[in-house]
Order: sequence, then structure tokens, then C-alpha cells
Amino acid sequence: MKVVIVGGVAGGATAAARLRRVDENAEIILFERGEYISFANCGLPYYIGGTIEDRDELLLQTPESFNERFGVDVRVLNEVVSIDKEGKKVSVQDHKSGKTYDESYDVLVLSPGSTPLRPPIPGIDGKNIFSLWNIPDTDAIKAFVNEHDLESATVIGGGFIGLEMAENLHDLGLKVNIAEMAPQVMMPIDFEMAQIVHGHLKKKGVQLHLNNGVKEFVQNGDGTEVVLSDGTRIPSDLVILSIGIKPNGELAKAAGLEVNERGGIVVDENLKTSDENIYALGDAADVVDFINGGKTMIPLAGPANKQGRIVADNIAGASKRYKGSQGTSVAKVFDLTVSSTGTNEKTLQRLGKVYGKDYHVVHALPNSHAGYYPGAQTIWIKLLFAADGKVLGAQAVGTEGVEKRIDVIATAIRFGASVYDLTELELAYAPPYSSAKDPVNMVGFVAENILDGLMDPIRVEEIPDVDLEKSVFLDVRTEYEHKRGTIPGSLHIPVDELRERVGELDSSKEIVIFCAVGVRGHVASRILGQKGFKTRNLMGGFSLYRQYHLPV
Amino acid sequence: MKVVIVGGVAGGATAAARLRRVDENAEIILFERGEYISFANCGLPYYIGGTIEDRDELLLQTPESFNERFGVDVRVLNEVVSIDKEGKKVSVQDHKSGKTYDESYDVLVLSPGSTPLRPPIPGIDGKNIFSLWNIPDTDAIKAFVNEHDLESATVIGGGFIGLEMAENLHDLGLKVNIAEMAPQVMMPIDFEMAQIVHGHLKKKGVQLHLNNGVKEFVQNGDGTEVVLSDGTRIPSDLVILSIGIKPNGELAKAAGLEVNERGGIVVDENLKTSDENIYALGDAADVVDFINGGKTMIPLAGPANKQGRIVADNIAGASKRYKGSQGTSVAKVFDLTVSSTGTNEKTLQRLGKVYGKDYHVVHALPNSHAGYYPGAQTIWIKLLFAADGKVLGAQAVGTEGVEKRIDVIATAIRFGASVYDLTELELAYAPPYSSAKDPVNMVGFVAENILDGLMDPIRVEEIPDVDLEKSVFLDVRTEYEHKRGTIPGSLHIPVDELRERVGELDSSKEIVIFCAVGVRGHVASRILGQKGFKTRNLMGGFSLYRQYHLPV
Repeated sequence: MKVVIVGGVAGGATAAARLRRVDENAEIILFERGEYISFANCGLPYYIGGTIEDRDELLLQTPESFNERFGVDVRVLNEVVSIDKEGKKVSVQDHKSGKTYDESYDVLVLSPGSTPLRPPIPGIDGKNIFSLWNIPDTDAIKAFVNEHDLESATVIGGGFIGLEMAENLHDLGLKVNIAEMAPQVMMPIDFEMAQIVHGHLKKKGVQLHLNNGVKEFVQNGDGTEVVLSDGTRIPSDLVILSIGIKPNGELAKAAGLEVNERGGIVVDENLKTSDENIYALGDAADVVDFINGGKTMIPLAGPANKQGRIVADNIAGASKRYKGSQGTSVAKVFDLTVSSTGTNEKTLQRLGKVYGKDYHVVHALPNSHAGYYPGAQTIWIKLLFAADGKVLGAQAVGTEGVEKRIDVIATAIRFGASVYDLTELELAYAPPYSSAKDPVNMVGFVAENILDGLMDPIRVEEIPDVDLEKSVFLDVRTEYEHKRGTIPGSLHIPVDELRERVGELDSSKEIVIFCAVGVRGHVASRILGQKGFKTRNLMGGFSLYRQYHLPV
Repeated sequence: MKVVIVGGVAGGATAAARLRRVDENAEIILFERGEYISFANCGLPYYIGGTIEDRDELLLQTPESFNERFGVDVRVLNEVVSIDKEGKKVSVQDHKSGKTYDESYDVLVLSPGSTPLRPPIPGIDGKNIFSLWNIPDTDAIKAFVNEHDLESATVIGGGFIGLEMAENLHDLGLKVNIAEMAPQVMMPIDFEMAQIVHGHLKKKGVQLHLNNGVKEFVQNGDGTEVVLSDGTRIPSDLVILSIGIKPNGELAKAAGLEVNERGGIVVDENLKTSDENIYALGDAADVVDFINGGKTMIPLAGPANKQGRIVADNIAGASKRYKGSQGTSVAKVFDLTVSSTGTNEKTLQRLGKVYGKDYHVVHALPNSHAGYYPGAQTIWIKLLFAADGKVLGAQAVGTEGVEKRIDVIATAIRFGASVYDLTELELAYAPPYSSAKDPVNMVGFVAENILDGLMDPIRVEEIPDVDLEKSVFLDVRTEYEHKRGTIPGSLHIPVDELRERVGELDSSKEIVIFCAVGVRGHVASRILGQKGFKTRNLMGGFSLYRQYHLPV
């Protein structure tokens, strides 16, 4: 059997290595149009910033080492330019010799990846404007940084790579701006969670320009002025573009394989394309969205690696299913960890789902570990779940134990968990690691309270709409906390005095209760609710309220 | 409704607080025979060692604060001494006044906890011999440490508290010995995993005495000589007993409630005892073993808290089930994190299960995060799974991301996961946090290879039994690694030369392959296996082999 693989980074290399392990006799040819295979694409920003010191660390395999280990014929700088699916052969351009040749296959695997977008913005070809996607990009940026005395950088786009680059350029001592067309950075999380990230970036001295795309790049001496849509001009010694990516589906489309509207390659559950002899995987494969059963494309290394293994097994005769991607991700953003899994609220709303009817939300701010053990940090968690309790997604931001909780919820989602299941999870507890009620249990408890009617939540986004003719804000925190800032116009009765002072409240009004994070607010809402008051409890409390309204 | 709760620490306090939130009108009385409720029992060693500086941090609630917040009548130093279940009342001894009185109830909740064992060893009542279980114990040890110029301490028992105390006493500058009757410390994990902990303790200068119980304590001036069963005498300025615990089931037994053979209180799935009006929870409750469906008692705060909440809800009219405990735990042991969930191999063997037939084992040593990002550390993982692939338990030891992986597997176990499910989990990946193939995916892959017949594993325990007439050891590591130590008598062919040098091997012999951890060994075993050799691959590789044979 002769297997030809197009693309030698995450998914393609995994498929080749696994195929060799299950079939010592297959002929395996791996084509890569670039010079490098199996490089550490997620590590590139950290090499530029100096956290990873040795460039060789980025090269996990060389063509030679991969061939020695796995007996795979690796051909770098060889680009597959067309597929003859009837003739079962590909046409290959050898960028070293300039020659083109054909290579036949029994099975073809497409792992073409994706390419950073470079929209036709005036001036985008300026000499200090870079994308970061592969080793040559990295070398170019590193050389530029080393050879020039840079003072400022502007990152266009606040996605994973954009924020990682912002951090690494900041680490190099540069003054960093980020321009983002959307109202927030880090699109996998929702706006109120992104506000925590915005605040952190601001604290680190990064200047954020939200709702502000690039209109133009103007060369200005050795630098570039980045001109934003609102007219702001940012003088920049270096510009990093990380606007987005597009799947490399052209080859598949030109060959007559079925592709989706974004050019992604359509595959079945075995990851086979519309052609019997061709598989596809990775960034460019149109796979099942594990949460809603629709289709999605997830440009992440984890899914690509899993798909590579499944494709190899299926080529060797198995019939393994790829059951879908749920978009679990994490990024380090300076001191923060930002992680999420499943669907977010923006997506639910785009799909026409209605908050309070089709889905619910929990905000909680538990400690990363027992509060009495030194170093405990707040984890900001948002949980999304359906009216029947099914967990739809989760987002978490903080400095410790953040992605651990997302991993736990991601695992639960994989088994179709409900919020009731989250309350029952038996997770590892000792004071340095967690609390007896783990943060994941805690969000489950809050969700359960909502579904069981024990808590009527109100969200920070709803606060401005509260009608003070019909409602009253009640701050149940301590005197000390209350004096340091509160929601304007709120009454103040500490929760521990509430039973005695209940007479001070107007029972004809809805009581909108808040504390610091929502825990004491819940106790207060239970006291008042059982005394006949209509109550709502502010999820995330004054902490999330203040963060949400933070101007950035 | 009048609810009486016996025991005011983890489970009892949780039950009281939750009950108040669901029923503002219930009369709730909480009896605690000690002076403190709801204290941070898991934090006590860290206060003694000084990591937790402020004693007040240990007192999460005082009787007064708990009453203010939750309207619960908290009576400390009031011990329930008998139950009249027909009369629905308890007899209470007030240790302050010395008087005894009755208190009636509609519902009674027993959360009596457990008590440290104090076997009748000669000399055990010596003045510098302490147990650590509650605040008075802590105060006594702290005072003893502060008031004396101590140089040495001996900890009897290598369980959670014993090891935490060893660390904290070491932090205080004491020379620490640990004496343990069993062949290993940290019983939730198996011996080969415990060897990693043994090695670490040794490195830290702690002297371990395994297979060595205490015969006698001999007072010697201001100190104590701890005399072990093999005759070793350890001069000790301070002795900490943490030999084990027994559930406080006497009260329940005397009242005629059903108890198990260890004195634990038998409960149904709603946590109700054999009496219609009495619930039990926590250390002394005999609950379902989630893994094997039998019964178990788990003296941990996590299960106790969950049970407290369920009991409160059931008292208020719900019918919530406690589905069982799986024994998920974690401990910090100096720089190591030691964590486990589900069943261990010792338990499987005690239940008569046979390795290779009823269950399988995976050992893997993945990196905690991407190897090219600074600071990646080995996680030693052991996975146990049934012949049908069902995950039975997992153990992990390392310094970073250890309990995260156990939490993920604990979650998967909760849903009845198979090892195939572990291969599919989509976990959060970025270089500082994990690898594209997370360690949990990795152990899933190895398990899948075993079940699918792609790998025939051999374990470090089996190495001494390998018959060198019929088998040969093959070291497939590099020359550099091989020279620094190998299994005596092994051939050496680096994996990358194996295809060319296969002629050097005797195909009439079984080839027992090993590398550093098992990954290259698997590649080698696939190469040779498909060429007709009978191969076995050493799980955990030379690393686990060396650790396993470490003399301690």
C-alpha cells in the first residue's frame, strides 16, 4: 500500500508516525511545501520573546530524524499542486529543483492546514509588517527584532497568537498596542469574561484599541503608522498581523472534492472526503461540532493530532470515528490563564437561542484552592447550560488551576454531562490544590439552584435596565466592603443582620441582592425569598459588576 | 421541623448551612463535642509548619458567626451521648456545665467523624507523643514545638497526615524519621508508584523505615526513643502518631442502628440509616464504592461535604441519591504531588482479580507540558482498566499538572469511561499547560494499544523473572543513555538503527524491549513485531525500572 500525505506539521506527521506503527510495510510519502515538518507551531511566540532560548527546540523532528525513526519518505519544499483523483496520483512541484513530477497513491491524506489572512489593507506589504505562522516567519521576526533597536510594536488582532505575541514583545521591553476590530479580544470567551483580560492587559501597560480595525498602514521613516478606523494613528516599529486564518482547501476544491462555504474539506465521520481514497484532517477539515451536532472547523493542534491517529488506523483497516471537536482551548496572557470549552454565549445567540429559555448562565468566582492556604487566587468561571441541565460550555480566567477546571468540564461535556453531574464529581482535594467543594462542584451547585428554582439570578449586563421604581438594590456585604464602592443607589444591610432588619425592606419591590461574588447574596436571597420577598441575586457580585463596567 | 445534627465539622456544618438555605423556618441545632466547628482540618499540618501563619485562618466559622449567618443553634462542648430513636430524642452532656439534658428531634443527622487510632503500644502516653486531628491537638503540638528546642521528630505512619507532618516538621528544621509498618507510604497508590515518593523523601533527608512498626516508646530524658519492630531505636524529641483512624460509630451502634463490621453506620442511597428519622454522613458512613459497587468508608472532606448537601435536601423533601465515593485524593509531599482516584492494584488483588485477565495496567511518564517550553516535568502515571476497557483507577506522581490529570480521569470514571474515551478527550492545550496529546490521552493511547494487541507490555516487577534462556533484553535508547546505566545483560540497538540491524537479533527468542519511558520501545516493538519477532515493551522504561529497584 502506498500512502501519500500532504502536509507535514501536526496532523500529517501524526498520521504518518501512527501509520508506520500499525503497518511496517506501507510505503509512506510525506509532502511538505515548507522547509520544516513537525515544528512547534504553538511555541513560536515564546522563541521570539526569549522564553524558549534555543531555536532547535522548535524543530521536534527533522526530515532526516523522522525518516530514521519511522521509515517515512519525507519531502520538504515539495508542494502538491494538484490531485488526479480518478488517476490516483498527485502532481508535485519540487521547489528546490523547480521541477514538477507525478506521484501515485493508493490512499491520499490531506493535512494542508491553514494560512493567515492578509486582507488588502493599504500599506500591508510594509517591511516591518509580519505574520507569524511558521519557522521562516519566526526567523524573519526574530532577525528584525535583533537587528533593530525597536521601541514599539502593534499587534493587529486579539486572538491567541496576537495576545501571545503581545506578551512576548512586552517581555522584550517594547511598548505594545493591540488593535482589534471586535469589541473584545479572545473570541472563544464572551465579552464580560474578556473584560477581565482587558483589565489585565491594561494593568500590564498594553494599550488596547477595541472596535477599531486597521484602515491603513503608512510608512513613516523606519517605522509604520497604523491608522485605525476611528482615525487613531499608532507609530510602530514593528507590526504583527494576526487577523485570522483561512483553511487551505484550494487543492481539494480544484480536485473536485466536496468543500464547505469557507473552503474547508468535507469529511465523513471516518474523516474520509467525498472521494473513497482520500482522507482529510486538521485545520482544513470540516468536522462535527460536538456540542450542537453541526459542522465546524477547529484550527487547533489537539484535534489535528487525534484526527491524524484515527486516519492512520482507518487506512490500516479500522473504522474509527471522529466524534467531533468541542473547541477546548487555553492561552497564557501575561499572568492570566484564559481557557474555554464547548460553546460560548455569542454562538448560542447567533444560533437564535434565548437566555433564560433555551439556556442559562452561571458566573462564579471561587478560589483556586483553600482560602486559608497561602496563594489562593480567584478563578472567574462562566458556565453555560441548557434548560434541561445539559452542560453546553464553560469559560475560565485566572492565574492558578484555571485550565484544570476547564479540562474537567470538557471531560464531563464529552459524556453529555448535566449540571447535576458536576455537583457529584469527586475531585482531588488538599488545601494547596482545591477546596472540599471544588470550583467545578460550586458552579454545578449554583446551576442546580437556578434549575431547582432556589435562586433567581440577575446578570451584570441587566443592571442598567433595572427599574428603580419597581426594584431596589441591596448590598449585603460588610460595612467595610460597602464603603469601598457599591452599585449607586443601593441599600446596605449586611447578610448577618438581615433576619433582624428585614423590616427595613419594602416588600412591594423586587430586591436585587448583591455581595462580592454571589455566595452571601444567595444566602440573603434565600432568607428574603422564604419571607415572601421577590429577590434576584447578582451572579459574580460586585466583583464582576466592577470588572464588566471597567472602561478600557 | 426540628433538626438535630451531631458533629459540626465538614459534613455536619455543610448540612446545617444547606438546610437553612432550603428551609428558613426549620429549627436547627448543631451539637459539637469539641470546642470548634467547621475548622480547616486539612490545614492543621501547615499551621504547625508555619505555611499558614495565622491561627484564625483555621477557624472558618465560629459558633457565633455560623449562628449569625445561618440561624443555627450551635452548641459546642455539648456531646450527644445517646440516642432514643423511638422517643426521637438525644441525651446531651454539656461539658461546660457538666449537666446532661435531653433534646428532641424530628430528624437527626449523624456526622460524628472518626478518631485517630492509639494502639496499646508500651509508652504511647509519653509527653512528647502527639496525634493530630483537631484544633486542641494542633495547639498542643504548636506549643510543644515553640517551647522546646527540638532537633528531631519521628512520624509514625506514612499516610496523608503523616507525610504532611513530615514535610512541615522538616520545614521547621527538624531531622525527620518516618516509621511505617507497611512496605510503602501513601496507601492509596501502589508500591511501584510509592517508590517515587520514597526516593523523594530520601532526597529531602527524611529517613524512612518501611516494613517497620513501632514496638515500644521509651522515655529517655526529655526525649523518646522510638523502638521499631526490627530493633531500630530512633531518638526523637517529638513523635507524631498517624497510624490510622476508626469511624465514630459507637453512638449509632448503641442506639441500635445498623453498623458494619468496622463500626461504620450503614446508610441507604439517600444516606438514611436503618431508622426512618436518622441520616448519617462523613467518615463514619458506610457508603457505596463507586468503582465496584461494594461498600466503603472514605474519610475525606470532599465526599463529606457532598453528602451534607444531599442530606439537607432530602430532609427538606427531596430524594437525592449519593451515588458513591471513588476515593479521589491528593497530597503535597514536599515538592511532589501525589494523587489518585478509583481503585488501586492492591485492592484489585485483594478482591481476587488477576492481572492480564481481569484487569490491565498502563505506566506512562509524559511531560507535564510541551517539552520545548521551559519547566516541563515528568508525570508518573499508572492507569488500571478492566479487560473490557473500563477505567478502574489512576495514580499520578510528579511536580506539575499531576492532580489535574487525576481530576480528568476521576471525571471520566464518574461516567463509566473506557480507555477509548480517554483517547478522545479534548483537553486544553498550549505549551505552558500541556501537550497536543495530553498525558490523559497518552495513557489512553497506550491502553488502546494493549487492548488492540498492538503492544504486549512487560512490567518492571516482571523483569527479575525473565528467563534469559528464552528472552533477551534490548535497549533501544541512544548510546549516551545506554552508557549511563542499563538493565544488566541487555543488547543495545538504538531504535533509529533497528530496521538495518534487525539481523543481529535472534528470532527464536522473545525480545524484551526498553527505552527511557516506553515510547521509543513501542516504536521498536512495532518494527520487530511486524517482522515476526515476539516482543514485549517495558512500560515506564528504564526510568521506572530504576525507580522501582531503588533501595530505600
